Parts: sequence; structure tokens; C-alpha cells
Amino acid sequence: MKLHGNPLSTATQRVLACLYEKDVEFQFVDVDMGAGEHKSEKFLSLNPFGQVPAFEEGDLKLFESRATTQYIAQEFSDKGTQLLLPGSNKTMAVLQLWKEVEAHQFDPPATKLVYELRYKPFFGLTTDTAVAEENEAKLGKVLDVYEGRLAQSKYLACEHFSLADLHHLPTVQYLMGSSAKKLFDSRPHVSAWVAVITARPSWTKVQDMVKQKV
Amino acid sequence: MKLHGNPLSTATQRVLACLYEKDVEFQFVDVDMGAGEHKSEKFLSLNPFGQVPAFEEGDLKLFESRATTQYIAQEFSDKGTQLLLPGSNKTMAVLQLWKEVEAHQFDPPATKLVYELRYKPFFGLTTDTAVAEENEAKLGKVLDVYEGRLAQSKYLACEHFSLADLHHLPTVQYLMGSSAKKLFDSRPHVSAWVAVITARPSWTKVQDMVKQKV
Repeated sequence: MKLHGNPLSTATQRVLACLYEKDVEFQFVDVDMGAGEHKSEKFLSLNPFGQVPAFEEGDLKLFESRATTQYIAQEFSDKGTQLLLPGSNKTMAVLQLWKEVEAHQFDPPATKLVYELRYKPFFGLTTDTAVAEENEAKLGKVLDVYEGRLAQSKYLACEHFSLADLHHLPTVQYLMGSSAKKLFDSRPHVSAWVAVITARPSWTKVQDMVKQKV
Repeated sequence: MKLHGNPLSTATQRVLACLYEKDVEFQFVDVDMGAGEHKSEKFLSLNPFGQVPAFEEGDLKLFESRATTQYIAQEFSDKGTQLLLPGSNKTMAVLQLWKEVEAHQFDPPATKLVYELRYKPFFGLTTDTAVAEENEAKLGKVLDVYEGRLAQSKYLACEHFSLADLHHLPTVQYLMGSSAKKLFDSRPHVSAWVAVITARPSWTKVQDMVKQKV
């Protein structure tokens, strides 16, 4: 298995965390985005949208980080951490629901905040405070729902760590190093969940790869 | 089974199309969004994010349209149209990939265009032409990738109609009634795909429900 990506990218980190949780061997291919390598003909043959990461396993070529983690979690279901919720269609639907909540409720404001509060300062650009405030308000409303859910359930989808939690790690980690940290800290169940998921050894390995880049 | 929603909402239409494809009996509960019914305590107990649609089957309560269609397609896999791609994990990964492409590449610019070009005029608001142009350019790039894909494959994920195609129907239908129609018409394989998927009898049934609302 090969993962082509960049350790600073949230989508790459999402797949890396999954690979480390499953404890499977893979080769990481660093894509030089500064040199525009993700827009090269060679990379576009892996992902026609020219975005990292791209995944290869023999003839199988995948992109879109959440499709890739789903494949890895299913293909290696008997290795490492159980990231799915095997059982009836109804059980699996609950995991799917919380994965969709991450993708469609949490991620849009979280990604905009990562860009405004972390990437822009990193690249010497100025944060648009109006955009940041608007998205902090949106994210706060999403986290109100999370606070209620996490009061009833140890993790988002069920009582064990699953893809629904894992998919949050990259954006949560970036935001915990920004002024948006207060949104998580002020909600006790959310705060406890963040502490638990970011302390996973798989995530420490991803963070070690990030540190070598900054 | 009960689906609570509004026929004008793209997310509601997505689940309706799936239910009609599977040819299963269900009760449609019209949510009066003009009266703010989706923000009522009763509706929030079905979907804490206060968005349509919400789905109920006995104790199972679901929301997020794409999680709901996935559940229906799996639970009723032997009824109506086969909307999944049963087989190996690798086969299923290809369906998952194109579902994620719809959600993360196609839907963001398509939804912004539906808002600017259809909802705003419907509610007497003025289209922001700069926003419309920016998102037409983004959608055009996505459709360039679709044109390449659909030159090789009859439908997006495989040779039969699947959830990956179905999820596009609501936004495609709205955009075909707007100036963004040219983006689809100018790409022959995309145009042929649009003609085929919008002609499905399930989709005619959804459109009949929409017509009763406008």
C-alpha cells in the first residue's frame, strides 16, 4: 500500500491516523505541494482532482480521505483497532450518521477556521476576523449538539472509538492550537472527548510526521 | 417508515428518490418550514441540527440524507433497484469514492449555485453574480473530471445506476432549470448521463411532489 500525501494536510492526516490504528504496513510518498507536484500529470492519474492524499494498493486507486479510511477499516477489519460498528444495518446506520455529521456539519466551519486561524498565519497572510467569527458561531452550535450526544455516549457513534471520531482528529488538533480552542474547552463532554481522542498513540505518530514539516 | 421533510429541499428529494427506487412503503410527513416547524422541540428530537429530512423506522431515528439513503439501500437490498455495488471491499470502495466525490467536490459549488440561481429568485432575493460566476467556474472543473469518467463508465461508480448517481439528482435538476445548464449541456457524456438519470420514474415521482409545492 502507498499513501501519497503531505503531512500538513488534514485529509492526509485522516488517512495516516487510520493506517496507524489498523497497524498495517504502508509506504508514505511525500508530495511536494510547494512545487505543485499534486497538479502534475503523474499525480492527476492518481487523483484527477489534484488533491492529496491518493492511495494505491495494486490495481486499486483511491482518493477522497473518507472513502479511503472506510476501505482500510473494512479491508483490515481483523487488524488493530476496530473502527467500524459491525452488526445489523441499523447499527451500521448510526456510525454512518455520525460520519456524515462530521463531513457536513462539523467539517465546513472547522475547515474554514483552520484556514483562517492556522494556515493563513503560517503562510504570513492576515486572518479575516469576520469570517473567523462567523464560523466560530457555526461551530459552536454544532458542538452544542456534540455536547448532548457525548453526555449519552462515550464516543460519537457508540461506546468505542470509531471512524466517526477519527475523522475529526486533524481539524480538532489544528483548532486546539488556535483561539477556537475555547469552543471545545467550554463544553465538558466535548473537552473530555478531545483529550481522549488526541491522546491515541496513532495520533502521536501522525503528529510526529507533522513536526518534521514545520 | 416515516420521512419528515419538505419536497423543495434537495436533501429531502435525495431520500425520496431512494425510497421510490427501492419501491418500499413509507409515510411522508410534510414539515412546514415557513412556520419554523423544523426548529420545534418535536422536530429537534428527530434531528438536533434542525434540518430536513429526518427518518424514522421504529426505534431507529436517522438524519443526514446520505446516511439515510445508505441505510435504505442496504436494508432493502433485495427490493427495487440495486443501488449499491455488492462484492469485494475493493468494489465497494469505488462506490464509496464516487459518493464522496459528490459530497465533497460536486455538492459544495452546486448547492451554492442552487441557492443563488434558484432559491434566491424564488424568494424575491437578488442573485450575487460574482458568487454565481465563482461557483460556475468551480463546478465546471468538477464536470471536466466527470466527463472523463463518464467516457469510460456508463454511470459514475460502475455500469449501473447507484447511490453515487442518485445523490446528484436534486442539485442537477435545479441547475438544469438555471443558467448553469450550459455547464452540463456543453459536455457530451455529462449531458447524456443527466438525461438518463433525470428520466428515471422514481425521479418523476419526486418532481410531481415538488410541483405541488410551487
